[in-house]
Amino acid sequence: MEIDFEHIKVIGFDADDTLWVNETYFREAEERVGNLLSHFETPNKIDQELFKMEMKNLATYGYGVKGFVLSMVELAIELSNGSVSNSIISHILDIGKEMINKPIELLEGVEEVLKMLSREYRLILATKGDLLDQERKLEKSGLLDYFHHIEVLSEKQESNYSKLLMHLDIKPSEFLMVGNSLKSDILPLVNIGAQAIHVPFHTTWQHEKVTDKETNGKSYKTVESLTEILKYFKLKN
Amino acid sequence: MEIDFEHIKVIGFDADDTLWVNETYFREAEERVGNLLSHFETPNKIDQELFKMEMKNLATYGYGVKGFVLSMVELAIELSNGSVSNSIISHILDIGKEMINKPIELLEGVEEVLKMLSREYRLILATKGDLLDQERKLEKSGLLDYFHHIEVLSEKQESNYSKLLMHLDIKPSEFLMVGNSLKSDILPLVNIGAQAIHVPFHTTWQHEKVTDKETNGKSYKTVESLTEILKYFKLKN
Repeated sequence: MEIDFEHIKVIGFDADDTLWVNETYFREAEERVGNLLSHFETPNKIDQELFKMEMKNLATYGYGVKGFVLSMVELAIELSNGSVSNSIISHILDIGKEMINKPIELLEGVEEVLKMLSREYRLILATKGDLLDQERKLEKSGLLDYFHHIEVLSEKQESNYSKLLMHLDIKPSEFLMVGNSLKSDILPLVNIGAQAIHVPFHTTWQHEKVTDKETNGKSYKTVESLTEILKYFKLKN
Repeated sequence: MEIDFEHIKVIGFDADDTLWVNETYFREAEERVGNLLSHFETPNKIDQELFKMEMKNLATYGYGVKGFVLSMVELAIELSNGSVSNSIISHILDIGKEMINKPIELLEGVEEVLKMLSREYRLILATKGDLLDQERKLEKSGLLDYFHHIEVLSEKQESNYSKLLMHLDIKPSEFLMVGNSLKSDILPLVNIGAQAIHVPFHTTWQHEKVTDKETNGKSYKTVESLTEILKYFKLKN
């Protein structure tokens, strides 16, 4: 099935790893924590245990840097059998603060794509995570003016998107979502009858990975870079 | 100046300490952490330093339990000169998780007031803090159906409320805000020409306190309990 771009009224963009770099910073932080804890465990074991810890705490902490830092502190205590030094814990807190205060690094072509599309479509930003973090990133990005509406969701599941479309007062077929995560930005939309374009980022968090079975038979487009999406629209300018 | 209830179209409610208990849990948590750190410092000093730490970190962490826990861990390390045990830090993490997972304790009369007012007014919830925490509390509260719209704000300043009113497509004079915090729920509204009713809670976080100078000459009502606000409305039922 081809995407029907004729009826699109609103285009939603994911933020992290679609408009700007994010996952890379989490991977870097994990590597730094791995080094701090390297005399307790192997890098591979630390990686695995950190992921387990994040999944255990996800329902309590949700997404975002603060929950990630709390999970790293808990992991450091657990992996060291309660013997990790205060200085390593302080270091972990500092890594978290650095992540929160990092400058924004826009992905290639973002500004051009938003500028072109915002002339003819209503654009919204639909992102997951910590409200304050996401607002701050958007502020720093300089992209705020391209968007009609910003929605920070605690989860990106079908029900969250259905509520958003109701709120925007449009039909699913009139909505196109653009994002890097099959699990969060593409499949839930396709499943409720909306359109989606997948722009993969080179790094995907394990939690966001999906199986072939889940994507099988689902209709969405995949492009290699954000600028590539422009060719699907008949833009007047 | 009297409040002009004739033109009110939308009533906004704050959530924490207006609809349900919140600040009390923070105070309890601080006391428990104070006990854990009692061989390093006096309770008074710990209190003061925790407040300073929270203020130092507020721009980075924002409001909510996760930032509070991260500040408590940082404080424990600082006050103990880097000698606090892993077991105390684990304990602090556990106190945070307990706070997040606490059941909701509605304040007196909340259900009755929302039921009565929702028949004749559009009610919205305007709360500050962590998105996931606030959504979860609302879900647990059973109050979701009374509200037309939920807005979780990263800050409650005049500009945030102005944006909200624009979004609701109403004039300031058509909006009434009800809440326990003069700083967050009352003064910013009065300053943009909206109406406000102050329902004090017995405990106020130091950061939310205001001076007489700030309230001087501002027109808003103060009531002793939420049910008291009903008498200001000419309700048909």
